[in-house]
Amino acid sequence: MGINFIKLKVETKHRGGMMNNFADVLIDKINEKQNPSVVGLDPRFNKIPKFIVDEMIGKFGKNFQAIGMSFFEFNKGIINAVKDIVPAVKPQMAFYEQYGLYGVKAFEDTVRYAKSKGLIVIEDAKRNDIGSTAQAYSDGHIGMVDSFDGKEKSFDVDCITVNPYLGSDGIKPFIESIKNYGKGIFVLVKTSNPSSGEFQDVVTENGVRNYIIVAHNVNKWCDETIGSSGYGSVGAVVGATYPKQAEELRKIMPKSIFLVPGYGAQGGSAKDILPCFNKDGLGAIVNSSRGIIFAYEKNGRPEDFENASQEAALKMKDDINNALKEAGIWRW
Amino acid sequence: MGINFIKLKVETKHRGGMMNNFADVLIDKINEKQNPSVVGLDPRFNKIPKFIVDEMIGKFGKNFQAIGMSFFEFNKGIINAVKDIVPAVKPQMAFYEQYGLYGVKAFEDTVRYAKSKGLIVIEDAKRNDIGSTAQAYSDGHIGMVDSFDGKEKSFDVDCITVNPYLGSDGIKPFIESIKNYGKGIFVLVKTSNPSSGEFQDVVTENGVRNYIIVAHNVNKWCDETIGSSGYGSVGAVVGATYPKQAEELRKIMPKSIFLVPGYGAQGGSAKDILPCFNKDGLGAIVNSSRGIIFAYEKNGRPEDFENASQEAALKMKDDINNALKEAGIWRW
Repeated sequence: MGINFIKLKVETKHRGGMMNNFADVLIDKINEKQNPSVVGLDPRFNKIPKFIVDEMIGKFGKNFQAIGMSFFEFNKGIINAVKDIVPAVKPQMAFYEQYGLYGVKAFEDTVRYAKSKGLIVIEDAKRNDIGSTAQAYSDGHIGMVDSFDGKEKSFDVDCITVNPYLGSDGIKPFIESIKNYGKGIFVLVKTSNPSSGEFQDVVTENGVRNYIIVAHNVNKWCDETIGSSGYGSVGAVVGATYPKQAEELRKIMPKSIFLVPGYGAQGGSAKDILPCFNKDGLGAIVNSSRGIIFAYEKNGRPEDFENASQEAALKMKDDINNALKEAGIWRW
Repeated sequence: MGINFIKLKVETKHRGGMMNNFADVLIDKINEKQNPSVVGLDPRFNKIPKFIVDEMIGKFGKNFQAIGMSFFEFNKGIINAVKDIVPAVKPQMAFYEQYGLYGVKAFEDTVRYAKSKGLIVIEDAKRNDIGSTAQAYSDGHIGMVDSFDGKEKSFDVDCITVNPYLGSDGIKPFIESIKNYGKGIFVLVKTSNPSSGEFQDVVTENGVRNYIIVAHNVNKWCDETIGSSGYGSVGAVVGATYPKQAEELRKIMPKSIFLVPGYGAQGGSAKDILPCFNKDGLGAIVNSSRGIIFAYEKNGRPEDFENASQEAALKMKDDINNALKEAGIWRW
C-alpha cells in the first residue's frame, strides 16, 4: 500500500523498452521449469493439518483469524515445496473469501509470499459485471485503485479468471489493465464441470455452439495483447474433461494460453490435456489442486505434507511431460 | 462469529413452523414500505464527502483502512436516510473488494448495520464456479462455513446475485442454502449493459435466444423454493434497459422476483420497468445506486448527503408508484 502511479512506472520491469507481457513472462517461467502445470491453492479448513490449526488457535483463539492464518501457514509450506517445480500457483478466491476479511487477508498474504518466491499468481475468481463495475474488479485485482494521492495497487495478482456472460463491455476494463500493467486474464470458454454444456453448448442458428462464439471473441481480444512469444495475455479456461472441444478450441484461439482445470481429482488424464497444447509444446497450463495440496492424505502423515505435495507436483510434471513426449511435442 | 449450527437452529425465525422464505420476507417488506425499490450501496472513494475521509485519515492515516472506514461511515449515513423508505439495500461487492481486506471489512460492517436497521441485504457479487467451489461461495455468503465446532455463519447476507454460465451444478449449492437458511439468489438472465446481447441473445437452433433457455432453468429452480406469497426465492436479474425482453421473461418466470438494474443513471425510466411487474403489482424490485447515494452532487452540499439521498429515494419511490398507478397495477 502507498505506491502511487509515478512510483509504479519507475518500478515496472521492462523488456526491450516495453512493459512486460504476461503471456511472455508465463511462457518464460514454463520454459525455465520445463513444466506447463500449476498448483491450485484451495485450502479447506477440515483438511489443514491439525498441528498448524492448533498453533494458530494458540495464537489467535478459535476464530476466523486463526482459520485464515492456518490457510496462510499451510500455503507457505506448499509454496516452499513446489516453488522450484512449477511456474505458477492458482489460489481459488472462493475458499478464502468464505471466511470474510480474515480469509481475504490470507489470500493477500499468500499472493505476496508466492510472488516473493518467484511464482506467477493466477487468481481464480471468475469475476464479471457491467462495464463500470468490471472496472472496479479490474482495478482491484490486476490494476490500480483510486487512493489518496492518485492510484495504488491492491491485490496485484498477475492474472485473474473472468466470466464472459455479460459480453465485451465487461471484459474491456480487464484488457486495459493487461495493457497498462502487464497482466493477464483467462476467460471461461468451456468449463470442466458436468453441467457446463447447459448454456455453453447451446447450438446457435448457424450451427455453432455458444462456447465457440465466446472463443472467437477471446481470440479477437487476445490479438490486442500479443507478446514477443507469439502468445497473448487473454487466455481461455478449457476443461481437461472435454478433450474433443479442446481440439476445436485450440484452432480457433491459436495464440491464447489455455488454463486447463479438471486434471486429476476431476477425472482428466494427461492424454486428455494434449489437445490443449499447440504443436510447439506450448499454449496450455494444466492445474491440479486437491491432488497436490492434500497429497499427504494418501500417506497419512500430515506433519509431512510438504514432501507429499512436492512428490505429487513432480509426479504431475513427469506425467504431463511424458504425454507431451509420446505426442512428439515435448520441447525441452 | 462463534455461532454454531445448533445455536442457529434455535435463533432462526419461523413462520407457521417453517423456516422463513426469502421471497415472502422480501414481499412483506415491499408491502410494508409500499415501495418495490432498492438502494445500491456502491461507494467510490472519489465521491465520499471530504469531511468523512478527513475524519478517517485522522483516525487511521492515509491507508486502505481509512478508505474502508470512510465507506462504512458513508453507508451508515445513507442507511439511516433510507431505512424507512426502502425494503432493501444492495451493496455491490466489487467496490469493497477492490480495497482488499479493509474493503471486505467495510462490506461486513455495512451488512451488519443494514440488517440491524431492519433492511434486507442483497449482495451483488455475481459469483459462479464449478459445484465444489460454488459450495464455498454459497457457504460463505448465504450459508455456513466449516469451523472449529461444526459450522458457523460468515457474511450472512439475505441474498446474492449469481452468474449461470457454468450451468446447474454451479447453482445447486446456492439452492441448498436457500432451503436450509431461508436465503435467496438472483440469477443473471438479461443484464442491463449495452453488450449483454453478445452471448445472452445468441439465437439457438430452435429459434430461442440463450437468455430464454436460462430463464426456463431459473423458473424450474424457483419452483423448488415457492413460499406462501406464491413467489419463490430464485429470482432473476433483468435489466430495465431491455423492456421488451422483460415482458417475455415475465411470462416464462411468473413466480420469480426480478431484480431490475438499469433504472436512472443507466438510462431506464419508470415506464421501462413496468414489464418486470406482474399484474398483482409485485414480482420486481428496482435498483438505483449512483442516482441515490451520490444525489448530494446535484445540490453541491456534501455535508448534507443524507438528506439529498433521502429525497432521491422518496422521488424514486414516487416515480415507480406513479408508473404502477398509471398502469393500473398499484396495490397499496
